[in-house]
Amino acid sequence: MPLPLSTRRHSLSHIMAQATRMVMGADARLAIGPDIDTGWYYDIDFGDTTLEEAKLRDIEKKMRSIVRDGQEYRQFSLSVADAKAFTKALGEDYKLEMIEDLSAKWETVISFFANLGKFQNPDYAGFEFLDNPDSYCIENAEWMVVIPEKQWKTDFDFRTSTFIDMCQGPHVQFTSEIPEDSFKLDKLAGAYWRGDAKNKQLTRIYGLAFESKTELDAYEHMMEEAKKRDHRILGKKLKLFTVSDMVGSGLPLIQPNGMIIREAIKDYLWDLHKDRGYDRVCTPHLAKEELYQTSGHAGKYLEDMFSVYGGTSKENFFLKPMNCPHHMQIFADNQFSYRDMPVRYFEPATVYRDEKTGQLSGLTRVRSITQDDGHLFCRVGQIRDEVSSIVDVIKQFYTTFGLMDGYWVSLSIRDPLTPEKYLGGDDVWEIAEQALEEAAIANNLNYKPMPGEAAFYGPKLDFMFKDAIGREWQLATIQCDFNQPARFKLSFKNEKNEDEQPVVIHRAISGSLERFMGIMIEHFAGTFPLWLAPEQVRIIPVGENFFGYADEVYAELRKSGLRVKFDDSTDSLGKKMRNAEIDHVNYILVVGDAEMQARTVAVRNYKTQDKTTEAISDFTSRMKTEIKTKAL
Amino acid sequence: MPLPLSTRRHSLSHIMAQATRMVMGADARLAIGPDIDTGWYYDIDFGDTTLEEAKLRDIEKKMRSIVRDGQEYRQFSLSVADAKAFTKALGEDYKLEMIEDLSAKWETVISFFANLGKFQNPDYAGFEFLDNPDSYCIENAEWMVVIPEKQWKTDFDFRTSTFIDMCQGPHVQFTSEIPEDSFKLDKLAGAYWRGDAKNKQLTRIYGLAFESKTELDAYEHMMEEAKKRDHRILGKKLKLFTVSDMVGSGLPLIQPNGMIIREAIKDYLWDLHKDRGYDRVCTPHLAKEELYQTSGHAGKYLEDMFSVYGGTSKENFFLKPMNCPHHMQIFADNQFSYRDMPVRYFEPATVYRDEKTGQLSGLTRVRSITQDDGHLFCRVGQIRDEVSSIVDVIKQFYTTFGLMDGYWVSLSIRDPLTPEKYLGGDDVWEIAEQALEEAAIANNLNYKPMPGEAAFYGPKLDFMFKDAIGREWQLATIQCDFNQPARFKLSFKNEKNEDEQPVVIHRAISGSLERFMGIMIEHFAGTFPLWLAPEQVRIIPVGENFFGYADEVYAELRKSGLRVKFDDSTDSLGKKMRNAEIDHVNYILVVGDAEMQARTVAVRNYKTQDKTTEAISDFTSRMKTEIKTKAL
Repeated sequence: MPLPLSTRRHSLSHIMAQATRMVMGADARLAIGPDIDTGWYYDIDFGDTTLEEAKLRDIEKKMRSIVRDGQEYRQFSLSVADAKAFTKALGEDYKLEMIEDLSAKWETVISFFANLGKFQNPDYAGFEFLDNPDSYCIENAEWMVVIPEKQWKTDFDFRTSTFIDMCQGPHVQFTSEIPEDSFKLDKLAGAYWRGDAKNKQLTRIYGLAFESKTELDAYEHMMEEAKKRDHRILGKKLKLFTVSDMVGSGLPLIQPNGMIIREAIKDYLWDLHKDRGYDRVCTPHLAKEELYQTSGHAGKYLEDMFSVYGGTSKENFFLKPMNCPHHMQIFADNQFSYRDMPVRYFEPATVYRDEKTGQLSGLTRVRSITQDDGHLFCRVGQIRDEVSSIVDVIKQFYTTFGLMDGYWVSLSIRDPLTPEKYLGGDDVWEIAEQALEEAAIANNLNYKPMPGEAAFYGPKLDFMFKDAIGREWQLATIQCDFNQPARFKLSFKNEKNEDEQPVVIHRAISGSLERFMGIMIEHFAGTFPLWLAPEQVRIIPVGENFFGYADEVYAELRKSGLRVKFDDSTDSLGKKMRNAEIDHVNYILVVGDAEMQARTVAVRNYKTQDKTTEAISDFTSRMKTEIKTKAL
Repeated sequence: MPLPLSTRRHSLSHIMAQATRMVMGADARLAIGPDIDTGWYYDIDFGDTTLEEAKLRDIEKKMRSIVRDGQEYRQFSLSVADAKAFTKALGEDYKLEMIEDLSAKWETVISFFANLGKFQNPDYAGFEFLDNPDSYCIENAEWMVVIPEKQWKTDFDFRTSTFIDMCQGPHVQFTSEIPEDSFKLDKLAGAYWRGDAKNKQLTRIYGLAFESKTELDAYEHMMEEAKKRDHRILGKKLKLFTVSDMVGSGLPLIQPNGMIIREAIKDYLWDLHKDRGYDRVCTPHLAKEELYQTSGHAGKYLEDMFSVYGGTSKENFFLKPMNCPHHMQIFADNQFSYRDMPVRYFEPATVYRDEKTGQLSGLTRVRSITQDDGHLFCRVGQIRDEVSSIVDVIKQFYTTFGLMDGYWVSLSIRDPLTPEKYLGGDDVWEIAEQALEEAAIANNLNYKPMPGEAAFYGPKLDFMFKDAIGREWQLATIQCDFNQPARFKLSFKNEKNEDEQPVVIHRAISGSLERFMGIMIEHFAGTFPLWLAPEQVRIIPVGENFFGYADEVYAELRKSGLRVKFDDSTDSLGKKMRNAEIDHVNYILVVGDAEMQARTVAVRNYKTQDKTTEAISDFTSRMKTEIKTKAL
């Protein structure tokens, strides 16, 4: 079985640290160097020295030589006391701090990895192996480390010779297992030690690593594409939204153009629900702590919640981080019978979650999150059908946005090894997990059971979609919940007139309107399907003589309900065309003498660059069809 | 010129205080007794005695005898020192406190009113007039009060004989001017001295007083009607909204039935705007203090604002009490030219204002206020046309709800005597006031100029409407604002490419969706026009044999988009009919053998109680017309 990519990435973080030392000198102190989704990073303290961007190429070169060198990764362990002495000798202050933490957590043995290089490499001069077949050994005046199987003795500064890092592994066995062209250094950033702005700022070096050069190239191409499609830049250029310093970070204000997209998505979501037995509800953005104590959010999410204080009333509240507790209160206000079940509430409502200012970005990392939230209250036996109906909505919705290619669904179920982590009886869990899986099968979903991925309150279906440039996004979710109905003591009367507790199904289709809109801006690169496009058509007369005819065309199109503008400015025809392209207008209609005579329009499709000449009525009816069918 | 009703009501408060003394004894200490919209009240400290509700009739009887008695109101003034001595002698501690306040405000003369009764009335035994043609005089061992024209001498306790109250007036001349049957005592309540819960609680006696018995009766009838229509009771009965203790007072949660009404109103509002050049925007519910410092809200409304604190970010925010500052930021993010003006933003957004818990009630006094807010940015010369267009929307909207009878508009302009109270140059004010008045005239509005009613930032048109039972509500408003555009330094480029500052017009049509919905529930007494009705039609088969046919009718009606239910319960026909009435369903369709044979439905109109028999298709097309025309 090939090693997972994450192992290779982690080994690369060691190789980079080693190479960095070789380039920058022994004073570089290492902090942490984990693998990440796209490669790895390492946080390093260069003291008074600054790592110039240009040096990254030198480090990369050294890394490749280490890879070629085929160094061997060897694990050895030391007692806490030895580990401290060893690390102190190496001058690794950050590692020392980590050992303190580990020993505070009752770890008694600390694991290290050494890269054992080939001695002919001049970079590794100074090594001396002791000829002992049973163990490796590292020692200095005060201590000696014995590594099973082999042993060596050193009289040099460890930090410039071989590379040893405190680490749990796992690692590749030899650095030469890593294809030389499957990785590269990416960028530099600043990062606080332990992520705390009160601590020292370290230099973070990011690396990219994939299975092969092909995949690395593909990723880099995707990133370049992503940069061009950056929704923050397009959002500003196309006047979709803005962020105001006076309002605050992560609190975007939606401009008229953005609202056209947002409302179209919102309306479409309601269209998909209104005939499936959903009722709309509306709940305030604040509530007293008691509500979130009862729901459990105050226990779990308190840090992420905004607290609210009334100046006149002197009362305390919280901004809602989720809509569910409010919907529980709406359910609780009714006396439902089994004949009323399932009860389905729909509310695209803005919830507020506090995030650190530095982590906020455009529409995708925000504090104001408009969830297209829905909560279904049903009987256990109704879960499967309800889930099927939701899956149906999700499939329709994502097909419309062209996102069903390459999707997959995580059937997030319990970890059988840790049953104590989950709330609710085994029987109910089994029924719910089975209902979710049955719904997944019945709807032909591309799903994978993911043990241990369930929420503590119930199993889930989490939907992952790939956008136009191949990035994966977790968007829709369907979650069974046995917890909140119990905490809120919800019930309805069953056939025997007894109180029965409903199951709650939380479901979100787009997830969050802000994030979904951000992703869609990038997915469509700012040129939206016609039904979403802020400006669908722009009419450009070739000269003032045709303003009258352009006006007629404009009136005709407006009457058909199209979002159309008529560029009656004094700009040149060329400038007008360029402006329309800058604005990503879907269709540009140029009108001149020929068109006026024939009562036609010369149509240019911005996306395909196709050019046609059509009668006005043909064009409008084509537009109407394109809008009605939500064509991509 | 007849005296204003308020004068009469104020005189009645003296008469009531006098009568109350006669019934309850001299120990009753008087606090304040102003006239109010429906009559008057007096706050009285009865010491250890409790005023029983039953005693109100005795007091009322005495009041009528005082009225019949034709007592004369006479004003006299005392120096502060004399007034204190006099009031102290009367034992009126609360009045004494008020004199202290008045003298602190540099008042040097304190005004009193005495009721001079007829001596033959045994209630006033103990009076003795001095025969002095020049003045009245009230004296005791320590002091003597001289009232111009006449003089009398007393040797009795003033508090049980004639009635003297510290008061600025004005009053009727003789109590007999007040029709005996034009007033009555209404109810008792508790009220803290100076409205402060830390002070002693006094007994407040409310009286009702109108021009005549007819008007008093009409008011009482209106109040009885209002009680029956109480939106809090109907809201619960019809499942329109709920208030949850866990969420908090003044933070209503809208139930599915309420949402049908709310969304219909919201959609209608947008329908009225979308072809008038409005763009929708969407702004977060919080912002940093800086925004409200700049707008001026933090200076004026801080007490009413909710402050917000982020648990992770440790950042401070406020919940928005108004949308305008946010809309200013959206405008500011654009570089508009005169060709773009006017710019019109529409956002029905929930703002939050803190009010004391005790003042919150149902939907009409809430903390979460969804304003159907709109802000127009225009040039001074565009004000009139813009206002006309808004007036047009208001007229259409309120005609639809049957509220245009008896409406009037306050043209709220500057008080010419206090020009320093207002912001902005005279020239701009004149243009704006004139533009508002011109728009009022052009649109045939029933308006009254109300000097001194303008906001400090600009003149307004405030619309007052009378509901079905005659209560007046201030609802729509159109306000010119020269202040915020200046504070936010807003500008657009004019024809000369210079920065020009726009005028902002704030406008709300329904005012607040919550309050408007509350008023509409009472206005329609829970039976809504069909386009608003949560349940438009209920189908009741006369027996199980007709369930199949009822189902067909149900499917037909659903297909037509009607909100219809089919009562397939096991209840008796009678019970089903009663249930439909309890739920205020607009149309009840009874189906039995005759209807099934003839493919008809027996229709009962809940509001008119009309009964018809109609073919299904006739009924649905009639319904569609009723909905489309928003018939009342």
